[in-house]
Amino acid sequence: MDLVIRNASEIVTCDGPLGGPAEATLAVRRGVCVGVKSGRVAFIGPEREAPACADARIIDALGGFVGPGFVDCHTHVVFAGDRSEEFEQRCQGRTYLEIAAAGGGIARTVAATRRATEAELVALAKPRLERLGAQGVTTVEIKSGYGLELAAELRMLRAIDRLREEQPLELIATCLGLHAVPPELKERRGEWVRQCLDELLPLVAQERLAAFCDAFVEQSAFTHDEGRALAAKAKELGLPLRLHVDQLTANGGAQLAAELGAVTADHLEQITPEGIAAMKQAGTIAVLAPTSTLFARARPFAPGRALRDAGVPVALCTNCNPGSSNSENVSLAMGLACLENGLTPAEAYLGFTRVGALAVQRPELGRLAVGGPADLVVFGCDSYRALPYHLAMNEAVVTLKAGRPI
Amino acid sequence: MDLVIRNASEIVTCDGPLGGPAEATLAVRRGVCVGVKSGRVAFIGPEREAPACADARIIDALGGFVGPGFVDCHTHVVFAGDRSEEFEQRCQGRTYLEIAAAGGGIARTVAATRRATEAELVALAKPRLERLGAQGVTTVEIKSGYGLELAAELRMLRAIDRLREEQPLELIATCLGLHAVPPELKERRGEWVRQCLDELLPLVAQERLAAFCDAFVEQSAFTHDEGRALAAKAKELGLPLRLHVDQLTANGGAQLAAELGAVTADHLEQITPEGIAAMKQAGTIAVLAPTSTLFARARPFAPGRALRDAGVPVALCTNCNPGSSNSENVSLAMGLACLENGLTPAEAYLGFTRVGALAVQRPELGRLAVGGPADLVVFGCDSYRALPYHLAMNEAVVTLKAGRPI
Repeated sequence: MDLVIRNASEIVTCDGPLGGPAEATLAVRRGVCVGVKSGRVAFIGPEREAPACADARIIDALGGFVGPGFVDCHTHVVFAGDRSEEFEQRCQGRTYLEIAAAGGGIARTVAATRRATEAELVALAKPRLERLGAQGVTTVEIKSGYGLELAAELRMLRAIDRLREEQPLELIATCLGLHAVPPELKERRGEWVRQCLDELLPLVAQERLAAFCDAFVEQSAFTHDEGRALAAKAKELGLPLRLHVDQLTANGGAQLAAELGAVTADHLEQITPEGIAAMKQAGTIAVLAPTSTLFARARPFAPGRALRDAGVPVALCTNCNPGSSNSENVSLAMGLACLENGLTPAEAYLGFTRVGALAVQRPELGRLAVGGPADLVVFGCDSYRALPYHLAMNEAVVTLKAGRPI
Repeated sequence: MDLVIRNASEIVTCDGPLGGPAEATLAVRRGVCVGVKSGRVAFIGPEREAPACADARIIDALGGFVGPGFVDCHTHVVFAGDRSEEFEQRCQGRTYLEIAAAGGGIARTVAATRRATEAELVALAKPRLERLGAQGVTTVEIKSGYGLELAAELRMLRAIDRLREEQPLELIATCLGLHAVPPELKERRGEWVRQCLDELLPLVAQERLAAFCDAFVEQSAFTHDEGRALAAKAKELGLPLRLHVDQLTANGGAQLAAELGAVTADHLEQITPEGIAAMKQAGTIAVLAPTSTLFARARPFAPGRALRDAGVPVALCTNCNPGSSNSENVSLAMGLACLENGLTPAEAYLGFTRVGALAVQRPELGRLAVGGPADLVVFGCDSYRALPYHLAMNEAVVTLKAGRPI
């Protein structure tokens, strides 16, 4: 054994059965220690039954609880530029349309990101990942989508690749070429869709630059048929699909995600009962981003309670991005999920662990099981309940990625 | 000069005229450095004009901005016990009444606080103050009000006194004996009011255990007439008055605060146009606590925009407490003030600096002026706009209290 964690109030393994009550999935164990060997969990059990480990490093949890490393399954942390002035303008009552007409909105981030070199994108993303890691996040999904031209989209994805080597968190890349219509192609959107499908995605698949592809299906972005074309190409290339749907307007996006076999349908503020039923039927995972609902002053919050009650797995994310959710705060996202999306603290915790891992098709993450990766967090509080309750504050004390402190 | 801060993007002095546009009050200066001597600001101006300071310690702001230390003008950080299970019950749909009937709510905090020794209260409050200090807070107001019996109220106030010696933040104590009717005196509330007025407050004044007295004027707490009796006693004892009003129900609380010459009226979610006019007329300061509106799922948020537009000074606070606002997060409070109370980032920043200081009658705090206290913060971002925009994240890098790093 390389390392043993002792004196935890409880180990929240998140390794119980899925689909039932959240508490069963949490599978909390008390009176046990955790042993780590070669980056994997080697033992969970009473200390007297632990294998001999005279040389093991000891971490004393001092009565705090231990859980799996968090998976932030939907972010946009690779970007350049700043939109704090736009935030100020929104607070002063300017509308999105006015801001967009003045060159603001996503176009501002796209312009800055296109100007940035790969090294600059890496340097800008690193502190964002550090802030996530400081809160116990060990795996982060990052989307492209601020390039909106071939070279810049590839540069974003290559920056993610390089970030893998330069910091300890595990990164999962998603190609979101269909994030928005490129500003210069407003009248010729078909050109960008074609270029994404025929040039960008094949390159991405060939160079293994992304694990997923994604699109923003919305009145102001891409249509259902464009989503269908993406899904067909993605299938051909063996790239699993995720979709941003039903965020600003209810347009049957959840049903589309279900129809296309998307792994996840993300946002869902405007989802209808029919959309919930379709997701349940298809086994689509819901990814909620409550911080962006708050930050963008959109209403209502996504119906997390109704989704859970219908049997749809619900993951959570920070959706960290410069326009609609400029925050890496995990506790805030969990707290809002409880206060505004109707989840319980247990469900919110699963949203950033077990279910978050499923949303990135990494079922071995977000749980603590013997033989699984030793991605884990020692918290300063004695229960997962304190994470949303101690709102927007950080309780992580020690975080291990594959057994190594980060 | 003991210390010089160089290379700031700007110094947000908060030393401009009050009452006009927030930007004028911010009085931002660029191209200047700040010199500190004997705990006070000794110089603000271009580096070439700075007095010789060969021995001064240099702080390089690296392009971040510098502002006054934050004043959190309304907190309840001295308390014992935990109410995370109650948070969970609320998320599961239990009502306040059901929770209160099961011994939860404020009664749970009162019971735990009564059981705690002064040393335990000090030990519990210290990490909360540390978390505030880590965000650039240099002055914190703390209320009693979880004792609700003579000895326990005094113990809370003495704990605040002792905390002054054991940590670096400046503390301002408020006697909030009239926070709630003690559980054991539900049928004899008059006894507690009498004891507060005739025994607790005179002792507090005599021993200088508090700078303010306060009451929760609300249907479920204390009446207007009880507030008037408190005000009369406070005047007799020379204790300035603050009031919790118009939080849960609109009952003319703001008008009462104006009538009684209260320094502040706090909460104000339910304030009416008549209440706003009365506060303007009387010069009462509004203290908004948006985190508690979110956390308690109360609606609407207080009308910060209407208050500012009417010319009422608006301060902000975390209102950190275990029941309705279990968060020390300053950026979250600022961000919510922008997103939900209608303030601009400049107004939100003033709420935690210049106006926050006025709310605790410490006009020399919350601003940077030559001769004033060197309570100041070097931030990692280049503008105050980033504080609410980088929602719930901490940008403070170096904080000085009276010239000394904390």
